[in-house]
Amino acid sequence: MSDPRPIGVFDSGVGGLTVVRRLREEFPRESFLFLGDTARLPYGTKSPETVERYSLANVRFLLERDVKFLVVACNTASALALPAIERVSPVPVVGVIEPGADAAVATGFQRIGVIGTEATIASGAYTREIARRAPGLSVVARACPLFVPLAEEGWVENGVARETAEIYLAPFRDDRVEALVLGCTHYPLLKTTIAMTLPGVRLVDSADAVCAAVRPLLTPARRNEEESEYHVCVTDAADRFRAVAERFLGRPIDRLEHVEITGDL
Amino acid sequence: MSDPRPIGVFDSGVGGLTVVRRLREEFPRESFLFLGDTARLPYGTKSPETVERYSLANVRFLLERDVKFLVVACNTASALALPAIERVSPVPVVGVIEPGADAAVATGFQRIGVIGTEATIASGAYTREIARRAPGLSVVARACPLFVPLAEEGWVENGVARETAEIYLAPFRDDRVEALVLGCTHYPLLKTTIAMTLPGVRLVDSADAVCAAVRPLLTPARRNEEESEYHVCVTDAADRFRAVAERFLGRPIDRLEHVEITGDL
Repeated sequence: MSDPRPIGVFDSGVGGLTVVRRLREEFPRESFLFLGDTARLPYGTKSPETVERYSLANVRFLLERDVKFLVVACNTASALALPAIERVSPVPVVGVIEPGADAAVATGFQRIGVIGTEATIASGAYTREIARRAPGLSVVARACPLFVPLAEEGWVENGVARETAEIYLAPFRDDRVEALVLGCTHYPLLKTTIAMTLPGVRLVDSADAVCAAVRPLLTPARRNEEESEYHVCVTDAADRFRAVAERFLGRPIDRLEHVEITGDL
Repeated sequence: MSDPRPIGVFDSGVGGLTVVRRLREEFPRESFLFLGDTARLPYGTKSPETVERYSLANVRFLLERDVKFLVVACNTASALALPAIERVSPVPVVGVIEPGADAAVATGFQRIGVIGTEATIASGAYTREIARRAPGLSVVARACPLFVPLAEEGWVENGVARETAEIYLAPFRDDRVEALVLGCTHYPLLKTTIAMTLPGVRLVDSADAVCAAVRPLLTPARRNEEESEYHVCVTDAADRFRAVAERFLGRPIDRLEHVEITGDL
């Protein structure tokens, strides 16, 4: 059995392209249709109902474009909208929270920290998923709202980034966490600063674990690698995103398109 | 002549309520209908076409609720969408850029700095409006993207705020600016830190100048002050905004409503 249709991936912005990059290394014969909801980002500061509404509109768009698989490459949308997406989707759905929880448990450490957006942390999704897998672990979760704008400003290793990281992360030292889940696709950009602030703590990037969750559910394509296509759609003006999107993706984009998502209700 | 209908005011978030507060002091007999587009904020990082589209949807909403006057209490929307709004509006429209330019020129200083969001600064609106009024002035404008998330995090006077202000504002010292326009409704929250970074520089809050622009165009209401109403609508979940909105407004809100703006196209 094979299926030539693309894998659909969405994020509130273009950070989720790092997930596509990881998927591409693992599944080089697949084509990808990525949707970045750049006109309505960020999701991480918004309410559960708004995040769910936007996520369902994104899913409708991807399904109308006939994707064979859905990857929710946004921690906030995964934390708040996955059940609603699974209810409407006729194709398999994978988010980033459960793979991240798998990866956290797989470290073998007993004291786990989680960082994410306000909405992700308020949802308790990581804490719940880790507890389901390993009820004995200690899990402490904290929101780091300024990490996203810092990453977008490119201030990832300067004094402001270090002082911000110190304020947000110092409590994890008191908690003696051994591993820290980077629960937002922007945070890996701050990895160096986070590692300096919490020396000796294992950093867990949930995108690493997504491929393992996708593989058993995927009906693969059978084309040659060079025939696979990378199509990126954004809801805000497209051109300013090409350079940053190609940097995140690690290869040229075959098609960059500005789309309007009208399913706001 | 009198007109009992409310004055309609919108902003991307609730920061624009500081403008309502100023208007309220000046026009205590007026009722206000404020719309904060909190589900789609921020506008300042988005493209001109998206900001215009969202602004027109907000205007349609306010006009359907029968406002007698429109105040665009968002610098980004004023910079990018005012001509489009004026084309569709049957009622008078006032933005914050032109009053801010008036106020900057009124300082009498020769070297003016302007700070704002990326979208506001990229539009060149303040520079253009100041030059129209006083072609001889030197105007330097710079975007300060992290000031909005810092204000929202409440980090307005800590080390991170000071170091961020130093990075963004130090170039204005080299330019020897004498007055600085705070071209975003969030920035007055950082006034203390900005003043410490640029000692001796006059800070210009464009909201101060809005009342003067509204007065000659307004058909006033004739009710008693205690009969005026403050109705606030937000597009993201309402409850979490009540406390912060009442703080910005400086009085209780008579009615807080969660609305969905469907005019996304």
